[in-house]
Amino acid sequence: MKLHGYFRSAAAYRVRIALNLKGMRPEHLAHHLRKGEQCAPAYLAINPQGFVPALENDTGAILTQSLAIVEWLDETYPEPPLLPKDPLRRAKVRAFAMALACDTHPVQNLKVLARLRQLGLAEEKVTEWAAWANREGLSACETLIAGEAGPFCFGSAPTIADLCLVPQLANARRFGVDVNAFPRLLKAEAAANAMQAFANAAPEKQPDAE
Amino acid sequence: MKLHGYFRSAAAYRVRIALNLKGMRPEHLAHHLRKGEQCAPAYLAINPQGFVPALENDTGAILTQSLAIVEWLDETYPEPPLLPKDPLRRAKVRAFAMALACDTHPVQNLKVLARLRQLGLAEEKVTEWAAWANREGLSACETLIAGEAGPFCFGSAPTIADLCLVPQLANARRFGVDVNAFPRLLKAEAAANAMQAFANAAPEKQPDAE
Repeated sequence: MKLHGYFRSAAAYRVRIALNLKGMRPEHLAHHLRKGEQCAPAYLAINPQGFVPALENDTGAILTQSLAIVEWLDETYPEPPLLPKDPLRRAKVRAFAMALACDTHPVQNLKVLARLRQLGLAEEKVTEWAAWANREGLSACETLIAGEAGPFCFGSAPTIADLCLVPQLANARRFGVDVNAFPRLLKAEAAANAMQAFANAAPEKQPDAE
Repeated sequence: MKLHGYFRSAAAYRVRIALNLKGMRPEHLAHHLRKGEQCAPAYLAINPQGFVPALENDTGAILTQSLAIVEWLDETYPEPPLLPKDPLRRAKVRAFAMALACDTHPVQNLKVLARLRQLGLAEEKVTEWAAWANREGLSACETLIAGEAGPFCFGSAPTIADLCLVPQLANARRFGVDVNAFPRLLKAEAAANAMQAFANAAPEKQPDAE
């Protein structure tokens, strides 16, 4: 199995966590996003969206979109499960994950920020935009799990909610967001980062880290 | 069951299609997004993200995030299925849906466009931004199913890919995108809109349409 990624990509980070939780050790292929390597024709043939991650499974099939990859991993290698069994709980976990993966991260990814710069926005305003997107998403997430005992986002084991949360908090800090406003999220993050599967997936632990 | 929505919301439109395909007839509650009704405290208590749709099921539980709602519907009311059975095919269908639901729609939703206006962007540039987001997403999707016979996105029956595609094409047209560049997507759209479940979910058919 091969994972096409980039150390700092929050979406690739999610999949690294999921692979670690499942005990899988794919080959890691780095594409330097700030150098635009994801737009090289050879990579676009793998993922026409020009985004990381992409996963090549053992039969050579290519999977894209981090949450689609994670759902596939969970269906194909069920232990440990990354979603609860109860449909309503699954919906809650997925909604939390998507509040970050749909409404937060894509609004502050490299491509969108580059477009803002093209429109003439000053660097300070670009960072403010990214911070805003993170604050909006994380604030909603703090409320979504306010009634959940934890310590993880949903219960006593990590789910796809946690593997979206941890990379998003890392992004939020990079853009200067005061994450102390989100105590329940920080509690889940601490529980997650105490696990090797999360700690080893961190950007600074990747071979392509700068 | 109650669906909180808005006639023109692409995300609510996806869920309307899914509910119609499953033969369900929830009560429809409209929240006028352009008047900011989704930010009223009573609605934020339903969905702290301040987005539509939200679904209240028969036990009063509230579900948010269109794709999480659709996955719950599919798990709870399995017929007709909205995802294939094979895990790899499911991953392909989900990746297509997420290319639109994660990387396209949230970059051009009302909230993001309002933020661009706040930054001083002229209306023409705001529309260009929305058109760009739609073109990027739909171009990738055209390639993702180039090898699929159809007539739907994936095979001879609609999946969550189609219920993301049809609303996104409606948005793209509204922002002036030349959708003739995407013949394979238009083929899937035609197959979908020939079904009552899709046709009846269209924005202009909703009671709150303007």
